[in-house]
Amino acid sequence: MAKTGPVQVALLGAGTVGGGVARVLIEKRDFFARQLGRPLVLAGILVRDPAKQRPDIDPALLTTDAFRLLDDPEVDIVVELLGVEQPALDYVVRALSAGKYVVTANKQIMAKHGPRLLALAREHGVDLLFEASVGSGIPLIAPLKRDLLANRITAVSAIINGTTNYILTAMSREGADFADALRRAQELGYAEPDPANDVEGEDARYKLAILASLAFHAPVRPDDIHREGITRLTANDFRYAAELGYAIKLLALARWQDGGVLARVHPALIPADAPLAKVDGVLNAIQVEGDLIGRVNFQGPGAGSLPTTSAVIADVLDAAQSVIGGRREVHADEEAPSRIVPMSELVTRYYIRLTVADRPGVLAQIAARLGEAEISIASVIQKETHFHAQTAELVIMTHEAREASMQSALEAVGRLAVVQEIGNFLRVEEQ
Amino acid sequence: MAKTGPVQVALLGAGTVGGGVARVLIEKRDFFARQLGRPLVLAGILVRDPAKQRPDIDPALLTTDAFRLLDDPEVDIVVELLGVEQPALDYVVRALSAGKYVVTANKQIMAKHGPRLLALAREHGVDLLFEASVGSGIPLIAPLKRDLLANRITAVSAIINGTTNYILTAMSREGADFADALRRAQELGYAEPDPANDVEGEDARYKLAILASLAFHAPVRPDDIHREGITRLTANDFRYAAELGYAIKLLALARWQDGGVLARVHPALIPADAPLAKVDGVLNAIQVEGDLIGRVNFQGPGAGSLPTTSAVIADVLDAAQSVIGGRREVHADEEAPSRIVPMSELVTRYYIRLTVADRPGVLAQIAARLGEAEISIASVIQKETHFHAQTAELVIMTHEAREASMQSALEAVGRLAVVQEIGNFLRVEEQ
Repeated sequence: MAKTGPVQVALLGAGTVGGGVARVLIEKRDFFARQLGRPLVLAGILVRDPAKQRPDIDPALLTTDAFRLLDDPEVDIVVELLGVEQPALDYVVRALSAGKYVVTANKQIMAKHGPRLLALAREHGVDLLFEASVGSGIPLIAPLKRDLLANRITAVSAIINGTTNYILTAMSREGADFADALRRAQELGYAEPDPANDVEGEDARYKLAILASLAFHAPVRPDDIHREGITRLTANDFRYAAELGYAIKLLALARWQDGGVLARVHPALIPADAPLAKVDGVLNAIQVEGDLIGRVNFQGPGAGSLPTTSAVIADVLDAAQSVIGGRREVHADEEAPSRIVPMSELVTRYYIRLTVADRPGVLAQIAARLGEAEISIASVIQKETHFHAQTAELVIMTHEAREASMQSALEAVGRLAVVQEIGNFLRVEEQ
Repeated sequence: MAKTGPVQVALLGAGTVGGGVARVLIEKRDFFARQLGRPLVLAGILVRDPAKQRPDIDPALLTTDAFRLLDDPEVDIVVELLGVEQPALDYVVRALSAGKYVVTANKQIMAKHGPRLLALAREHGVDLLFEASVGSGIPLIAPLKRDLLANRITAVSAIINGTTNYILTAMSREGADFADALRRAQELGYAEPDPANDVEGEDARYKLAILASLAFHAPVRPDDIHREGITRLTANDFRYAAELGYAIKLLALARWQDGGVLARVHPALIPADAPLAKVDGVLNAIQVEGDLIGRVNFQGPGAGSLPTTSAVIADVLDAAQSVIGGRREVHADEEAPSRIVPMSELVTRYYIRLTVADRPGVLAQIAARLGEAEISIASVIQKETHFHAQTAELVIMTHEAREASMQSALEAVGRLAVVQEIGNFLRVEEQ
């Protein structure tokens, strides 16, 4: 049932994420059309208040009538971004039953009703895609479905709630107690006024249910998952854990055990040098272990309008490929880089190690050569005077400079009588 | 052109990776058949020496005649694992031209000839898949093709050569010089007898060419990439970098700049707290930055027979889906966990924080209660004696114990007159 016209997308919800998705679908429409070989158009957006100002969006697209979109035979893909269980669940069921592809960011309906909804999609020959429901824009669902499919997954260990990780990071760094850290997270907008869903581990439980069901090829429901929150943690716990060589994180864990799977969400001590111990602030990280892959780690922003939009649109493009009946491939793009920039145009900071004569005025001579190339010195370390050779080692960190200037300055420095050797020269990546 | 019989796979090469792929295709054939809804069978394996002992593989599958496989109309998918440029390139061209899907782990042919080969695949209505060519089993290629497609990628920063990262990690930790660290890496099999391809950055350059071409939607050839190796680094460089707050890594970098892309492979100073600075030993890590996603990080084993097999088979399953004409979905599996294991069956170590009376014999009483539940103490910290209250805080780390035993022991401990409060109780995940 390959389609010939444009692929039509209906959005349910125009909140933070919905608004972002609408904006990006409009702004990047030419790029998406080139990738798909076919336009991807917004057929309509379900909103609560059509009178609200939405400067980027054609008001004719807005509707308060979900069924106008769900029952429109022209709509190929329904994107559900309501963020609540109902009426989202009913809408998704209706869309799938009508043979429409559905993309959702809704962890609640996927955690509670995922297996049933996926079966419904299969029954109607379409797909239900939910990359944004866990870990926002971090690719997780598709890698579990595709890239790790040859593996027997043995464990999933994750930090998948940004709010609690932000609070725990603050407690660990500042010796704050839970209540203080929570208050500050609320002031900064990292925690909701009613934080229970996050700090009691409920949000992480939903996400783990989704990940574990996928990883273990069997339904793991939220109620199957033991859950403890972070509210009982004190500043002392962090202090003692650190003394013992551990960090404290709210972990979502699911592991094979005795022919079954044990899944749980609770704060845990993890070795301070474990990769997950270094995941701080609102970041999310998911570690997957499998019989072939060993251990692989995914890390990135676990929330936010743009990262979530990234995942939602990836799913929309995937669904659109299926609607069109084409294969997934990345096409060369006219907005691609127009040239290869030569190394001489690099602008960065530099580290230079030199062996120099150990006498007054040497640094001034070197600085003068660098200055002639408009390179300024950020810091200098002088080291290891070799008394007999009367030489010293000099380490210079520069401010930002152009590679071409740096190369010519280095040549000039190398020609100075007081410079015995340019030992090394490295670029600094501030990341 | 959907197919009805089994999907037939030919392997070119039965070395470390090829042998692993063959073994896993045989061992997991029932699982793969369930996922595909169709058997996935080995049609033949190109080897140099058919007389060599291969205990897991039917000798009838072996052939020294590549064309027997490449020209066999029954073969749907050709997996190229020869690891050299020729004759691999000719074989891949021939397979694609014959309308066969091709899966390759060959970074050389993809870096040098990728755009041409991908165009050839498109022309013949098939796919060329190359997940294993960069970062072994770490999902990278498919996430760039699918999950991050909505993004305008602005930078790729990667540690993609395990040999050099192993050497640099040793130099950093042990203050070793390059020559010593290399010698040890060679003794341990982490570096080749002729290490030039790795230590001069050539291997990383190939991989960066593949990643950058995909990320920026435009061909970036190996020759477009500035390359410096790690051979000039000394123990002092690591010492000075550390004093300045930096680590040294061999980075593969590609970034948008002035309407073009600047790509380079060289050792660089990076802030000691940057995520890439913490990637040690033979691990690989790739950081991708995009306009929507912000920054996302992938990490895992960058080499090895099993991780590479994981990626190769993911591609084979993907190609097989296309051959069959079905949609990608993960099916429930009969080898999936048969039960949800209750929390009471968890076995782990525990951290317990207690407020106790500050007098002799208290620890003995607590240890006795724990001992009755067969829980032994690994370490104890006693803290913060409150002089007036005559209480102390006690932190106990246990050896491994069963959750059920721990819960009943905690109850017994809580009933002790000398125990004022069980302040907290946390599980320890040794990761």
